[in-house]
Amino acid sequence: MLGLKCESNSEWITRVKHDAALLLSDHAHCEKKAALTAISLLNRYPERTELVSAMTDLAIEEMSHFKMVLKKMSDRSVALVRDNGDDYAARLNEFVRKEEPKKMLDRLIVASLIEARSCERFALLASNVNDDDLKEFYTSLLASEARHRNLFLILARRYFPEQEVSSRLGELEETEAALTRALPSAETIHG
Amino acid sequence: MLGLKCESNSEWITRVKHDAALLLSDHAHCEKKAALTAISLLNRYPERTELVSAMTDLAIEEMSHFKMVLKKMSDRSVALVRDNGDDYAARLNEFVRKEEPKKMLDRLIVASLIEARSCERFALLASNVNDDDLKEFYTSLLASEARHRNLFLILARRYFPEQEVSSRLGELEETEAALTRALPSAETIHG
Repeated sequence: MLGLKCESNSEWITRVKHDAALLLSDHAHCEKKAALTAISLLNRYPERTELVSAMTDLAIEEMSHFKMVLKKMSDRSVALVRDNGDDYAARLNEFVRKEEPKKMLDRLIVASLIEARSCERFALLASNVNDDDLKEFYTSLLASEARHRNLFLILARRYFPEQEVSSRLGELEETEAALTRALPSAETIHG
Repeated sequence: MLGLKCESNSEWITRVKHDAALLLSDHAHCEKKAALTAISLLNRYPERTELVSAMTDLAIEEMSHFKMVLKKMSDRSVALVRDNGDDYAARLNEFVRKEEPKKMLDRLIVASLIEARSCERFALLASNVNDDDLKEFYTSLLASEARHRNLFLILARRYFPEQEVSSRLGELEETEAALTRALPSAETIHG
């Protein structure tokens, strides 16, 4: 469960599993926003050499995933539509404290939680969708999401004391679980 | 000259050629901003399949260049510092018209002009710097910048009539030349 304090409501997978192609445009935008988060972090903390290096590789990987999702869409004649935003991620980001260095710690933890939840959602898709090719695709992405979740926590522990990371992680895991329980089971990756 | 209406003032290369490593942090941020421009364009025009595909590849390539610049910095113990912005690019972007679809055309043309000017600057660095490794590096990047310049014009012509592209390109080439003539010869890629 990668530290997640609750499972997704089963309504979500029931709602999306019959036509997982409907999720693809939103999924593409999730990959794009993950790349933007990586670039934003390296831009904000240029003096943190290890973070900059990791976020550079991550941005490249996320845009490569974006490209893979585009291919799945093209194969199915599914169009990329406007990014409608991600309420779940936006609400979680509201818990990032404003002052540094707490802000940096919170951004890393929030990013790790979003990766963890994405991993859980991809696992649900991998187990439940009818489309065999998408089943394989989501299975292939699972490992990356789990690795990214760990990467953000490794960076948090690289720059902050273990006690501070664990304490704040515990708080934000509870926040994330509360937000997830309240999700409307919409046809999006984090819906 | 890739359509550029003026050469860079020779003061610039005179000022930077003796310690080209001073440019590297700014150069890294140029690559990052080029990636962000590519992502911004695909985000704004998701229905333009050809543009989305080209901008995805471009974002990956620009972040790969960012990574290459970081390596050159690491080799020389040069630190990445805060992005101080790019006055040249910011001022050129002020000429992008606000209403669509003219905005899209102007964004593509402005991006092509920035790539063309970067190409000219890299050619000057390749011919003049003392550091043989950087000389080779800038030579290797020249072809990419020229290709990107052409890519943006191909996209402009894909979505707009030739006459409209040529006419606006002519205007913005003059604008770009006027801005370049007024540059302060600062120690940045577009200084």
